[in-house]
Amino acid sequence: MMIVMKEGATAEQIAHVVERIEEVGCSAHLSTGELLTVIGAIGDRDRVAALGLEMTDGVDHLVPILKPYKLASAQFKKGERTVVEIDGRRIGGDHFGLIAGPCTIESREQTLDVARVVNDAGATMLRGGAYKPRTSPYSFQGLGVAGLRLLQEAKDETGLPIVTELMDVRDVEDVVEVADVIQIGARNMQNYTLLTEAGRTGKAVLLKRGLSSTLDDLLMASEYVLKEGNPNVMLCERGIRTFETAYRFTLDLLAIPALRELTHLPIVVDPSHAPGRRDWVPAMSLAAAAAGADGVIVEVHNDPEHAICDGPQALPTSDFADYADQVRRVAEVAGKLVTA
Amino acid sequence: MMIVMKEGATAEQIAHVVERIEEVGCSAHLSTGELLTVIGAIGDRDRVAALGLEMTDGVDHLVPILKPYKLASAQFKKGERTVVEIDGRRIGGDHFGLIAGPCTIESREQTLDVARVVNDAGATMLRGGAYKPRTSPYSFQGLGVAGLRLLQEAKDETGLPIVTELMDVRDVEDVVEVADVIQIGARNMQNYTLLTEAGRTGKAVLLKRGLSSTLDDLLMASEYVLKEGNPNVMLCERGIRTFETAYRFTLDLLAIPALRELTHLPIVVDPSHAPGRRDWVPAMSLAAAAAGADGVIVEVHNDPEHAICDGPQALPTSDFADYADQVRRVAEVAGKLVTA
Amino acid sequence: MMIVMKEGATAEQIAHVVERIEEVGCSAHLSTGELLTVIGAIGDRDRVAALGLEMTDGVDHLVPILKPYKLASAQFKKGERTVVEIDGRRIGGDHFGLIAGPCTIESREQTLDVARVVNDAGATMLRGGAYKPRTSPYSFQGLGVAGLRLLQEAKDETGLPIVTELMDVRDVEDVVEVADVIQIGARNMQNYTLLTEAGRTGKAVLLKRGLSSTLDDLLMASEYVLKEGNPNVMLCERGIRTFETAYRFTLDLLAIPALRELTHLPIVVDPSHAPGRRDWVPAMSLAAAAAGADGVIVEVHNDPEHAICDGPQALPTSDFADYADQVRRVAEVAGKLVTA
Amino acid sequence: MMIVMKEGATAEQIAHVVERIEEVGCSAHLSTGELLTVIGAIGDRDRVAALGLEMTDGVDHLVPILKPYKLASAQFKKGERTVVEIDGRRIGGDHFGLIAGPCTIESREQTLDVARVVNDAGATMLRGGAYKPRTSPYSFQGLGVAGLRLLQEAKDETGLPIVTELMDVRDVEDVVEVADVIQIGARNMQNYTLLTEAGRTGKAVLLKRGLSSTLDDLLMASEYVLKEGNPNVMLCERGIRTFETAYRFTLDLLAIPALRELTHLPIVVDPSHAPGRRDWVPAMSLAAAAAGADGVIVEVHNDPEHAICDGPQALPTSDFADYADQVRRVAEVAGKLVTA
Repeated sequence: MMIVMKEGATAEQIAHVVERIEEVGCSAHLSTGELLTVIGAIGDRDRVAALGLEMTDGVDHLVPILKPYKLASAQFKKGERTVVEIDGRRIGGDHFGLIAGPCTIESREQTLDVARVVNDAGATMLRGGAYKPRTSPYSFQGLGVAGLRLLQEAKDETGLPIVTELMDVRDVEDVVEVADVIQIGARNMQNYTLLTEAGRTGKAVLLKRGLSSTLDDLLMASEYVLKEGNPNVMLCERGIRTFETAYRFTLDLLAIPALRELTHLPIVVDPSHAPGRRDWVPAMSLAAAAAGADGVIVEVHNDPEHAICDGPQALPTSDFADYADQVRRVAEVAGKLVTA
Repeated sequence: MMIVMKEGATAEQIAHVVERIEEVGCSAHLSTGELLTVIGAIGDRDRVAALGLEMTDGVDHLVPILKPYKLASAQFKKGERTVVEIDGRRIGGDHFGLIAGPCTIESREQTLDVARVVNDAGATMLRGGAYKPRTSPYSFQGLGVAGLRLLQEAKDETGLPIVTELMDVRDVEDVVEVADVIQIGARNMQNYTLLTEAGRTGKAVLLKRGLSSTLDDLLMASEYVLKEGNPNVMLCERGIRTFETAYRFTLDLLAIPALRELTHLPIVVDPSHAPGRRDWVPAMSLAAAAAGADGVIVEVHNDPEHAICDGPQALPTSDFADYADQVRRVAEVAGKLVTA
Repeated sequence: MMIVMKEGATAEQIAHVVERIEEVGCSAHLSTGELLTVIGAIGDRDRVAALGLEMTDGVDHLVPILKPYKLASAQFKKGERTVVEIDGRRIGGDHFGLIAGPCTIESREQTLDVARVVNDAGATMLRGGAYKPRTSPYSFQGLGVAGLRLLQEAKDETGLPIVTELMDVRDVEDVVEVADVIQIGARNMQNYTLLTEAGRTGKAVLLKRGLSSTLDDLLMASEYVLKEGNPNVMLCERGIRTFETAYRFTLDLLAIPALRELTHLPIVVDPSHAPGRRDWVPAMSLAAAAAGADGVIVEVHNDPEHAICDGPQALPTSDFADYADQVRRVAEVAGKLVTA
Repeated sequence: MMIVMKEGATAEQIAHVVERIEEVGCSAHLSTGELLTVIGAIGDRDRVAALGLEMTDGVDHLVPILKPYKLASAQFKKGERTVVEIDGRRIGGDHFGLIAGPCTIESREQTLDVARVVNDAGATMLRGGAYKPRTSPYSFQGLGVAGLRLLQEAKDETGLPIVTELMDVRDVEDVVEVADVIQIGARNMQNYTLLTEAGRTGKAVLLKRGLSSTLDDLLMASEYVLKEGNPNVMLCERGIRTFETAYRFTLDLLAIPALRELTHLPIVVDPSHAPGRRDWVPAMSLAAAAAGADGVIVEVHNDPEHAICDGPQALPTSDFADYADQVRRVAEVAGKLVTA
């Protein structure tokens, strides 16, 4: 942490800051310029941050130097990349994951139908929601345990690993029975009790970036999972809130190379929710693959017009094989292979 | 809901949309202009929304006409305003609530010291966190039940009603024993299971606006509490995420007159977190009162330099009486009285 | 325009709105639901908008139905796409433009060196700034006319058409002598006098999206050029301001499919400014091509370490041929050919 | 400038950075922590910034320490505040300016009528636009010179100094004849040629913050005016672009205390454009005054229903005296006097 003193800060003020830094077992290093002094606090970042020196007399502002996350940082694995592997299917490193399936589990026929199509087209995993976070309390909230059972059936038939959302810590046991990957939704990205419980299950976790979360926020959230001893976290960009109203969210693909520099964790993109309409989903999927994403998680439905939830953004099963081929081609240009 | 058809939409396409609207028991009303046709869907908004007509052939886009929230809407109470009353202390309508206290409950001395000062200066309620949502898993997470006990002690001594945060559905019973108002933090604004459980307690709820939540999102979140039969919800503006980096968040005071038009619920402002530094807190508090807020919830500490959390933004207890006087003066210009 | 009346609006209030609409030669069409009335104003959108009905008694809000731009709209060319052609080099439709060159013209050697390299690697046009908009008045503001002369020399030698920025209406004559494409920078996107003068030159215009401009704002700005009888406008996405601070701007690639639906104009992406660092530029260039952009405009320098301006984001000339190959491969997957 | 090296940066890489800093006449100061080295570059900030060290081998990132503006900085006047004075009317320091008038000059009757009312109610200056920046090229663009003449007439009759917008450098002479304060609109905040010309006139300048401009951007823009030897710049907050769609812009009142810390220049708030509707304008005006603004610039019309531009946000002249009284009361609580 660097503490930038105000122009005209007195020797006493500087000494007081140094003293407080030393009180918490860190050392202070002064750098005196023509106009002002900068104090480098060397040692445990968190202890210095906890001092709250921002309003101390003579202090202008603080500049953090080290990142606040540890286990998630690229340095932690010294350049090696995390590869999440489930039943031989890999995501991360040179492996591109194509995760596909319906937004919401609605019925046996829908679930199995979609699962077969995406499996035949070479998908890596099956996605599907049994518990749905809905903006309105009056909207369909998911089939719950009955939905989880349908996912199990689809897994039994196709062998596809299951990605499904956990919303409530009280559902952990039910979800863990079926899920291979626990999805934490964007709205729950900073639901720390949920993150901790997800971490404790030992299952892989797909963590969606919150609508207004910085990459640092996302990595700090992943730290809640990782600190439980669970190394299998995948980060998911799904669109951020901006001023633009031509689409629901602004898909932030620059996050891909940026996260690649900051962390060893795989980076997956959800190309469905930001556009909110299926005709823009392929362009965003290819762009994600071209930008170096480790996977996409895309919504597919056998009858989008009658989907209970988010039908307009679901790719119809009839288009999925072609879509998968195109994604595969672009991923290859970016140096990755889709693993089915 | 209005369905705006594309220029050149065919008669068949229009007929298909009309048919789908009628299928869900609503009626369709056509308005044909020179260039295009607009179809008004009259009836249950949610049913029409669930049709997902956005990508239906010939449809350009949809325009919702009615707001998605019901119990929170100004129309629901026909212009009457909700006044939350606890032990004779009121917030809402002509009553301005001055809620003050430490960010985090740290110790018996700190809690009682702050409670006495804010009580003497005429505060309406005491705030203080026993469970703290922290960006870092390595930061202090609050005293938990021990913190709740200290709040109880402060309440016993001063008579101040207690506002404290609930983060985990498994803590509901403990929190309810002490809290008069359950605070739902910004990061949990869309934690729907938490909102539902808070609603069921029957305690008043102070619901903080999420960092990137629109006013509609906030009102939909309040609907989760209200629908449990709990009418005592206070909304809290605490700053939104924008591109500006000169402060932690951008305090959105225009939300005050806008919410006043949309809802009957009281509107409280947290002037502490957006600036993140105490010298800007009075200006934002006065501005909130001037803009017509129904209250402020402000952080106060007896020894800010050694606070465990957010010390730089805490008002020192020594300044609080003057601060309260100024807020009171401006609230009066805006037509409100502080109730202690 | 749809005028949504408040619940409880009186018959007189509705009649008054209808009267005002008819006063400006439009007709009004009523749609009466269970709760409220919506009035469709049929006729000239601008005249109804100019009425400013938003605060008229009984009016809740207005919903524009038609887009405010005309010449830029996809409907204007009935689905045909604009192809900008200069000396046989095409951008738009199936043609992908690779525009490359230094940020700022610094010297004869730099300019010619970069021009030769990008020409050899098959670039479509040469970019380079003689007038530079700088945040600081103390920064280098460009070589001016001397810079324009160097661009002319590069064009004479390589045959590459020139893309260069116009900042001041008083420089139009000088710029027009050399430029094949006049660039309007993001900061000047709503400098309407500049847009009008650029339109009058008859030269093609590359219009950069402002940092906080919606797609509608961008298209309205293009309308200022188009209305001068100049059909050759290229739109350029270069990053928008958001809360994320891990990069300078958030590159908004979802704008590509969205603009393709809204307008017939070619869509170019600047992959250099948003990351602000060269190692992320290839990923964003490939993503732009994959998402269906009609071109990229990228910064290249022969000695980035000593560049006067934006060196960290410049690709070194030594990497350019490989870069161009990769972009070409992805553009081909997206169905486009690079034209040199 | 602090240069933060990567973990594991080599001694050679550090030496190279030091060398480059010394090449431009600055000195380097090393601070070596457990994990990494930070190099402080002491000397001319701009020269070090121009080195573009961001992508130099071994460099992680750069942290600017000094602000890039000089003349605008609070330090430049050592705590003294700029007071702009025109004909004895002052804005800044303890003086609150109430600037009022129509959005657009439409007619002699309108102009004089509004001027008289605001003058009678104690306004400090008269605002009114003769040149209007309009999003649409098809909208009314202002009366031009004829409008300027009407402003002159209003000034002659009432004695009110005139605030009016300059949009085109070619209009400088005409505008200067009438204007006491030249307004630079939000869209032109980074139109550097316009800023420079406005600076050269020697007239006071009211500089509106761009929709997505940070406070640093705003202060850098003011620097373009100040460096021409023109000290009379007033900054104007008028709302920024955020994700919220319940209003046109988000009025950022936290900018007031923040700017007060950063600069000596007066800070004025435009409470009309962000809400876009007159019933929310008083709340925002009072909030601005309460937060410590040095003035407001508000739109007033004698017949808002028939205004050519922005009628819905104009206060009717009939309400203005009461409005002015309320603003005056709150400004007094904040320690300022309205000067008429």
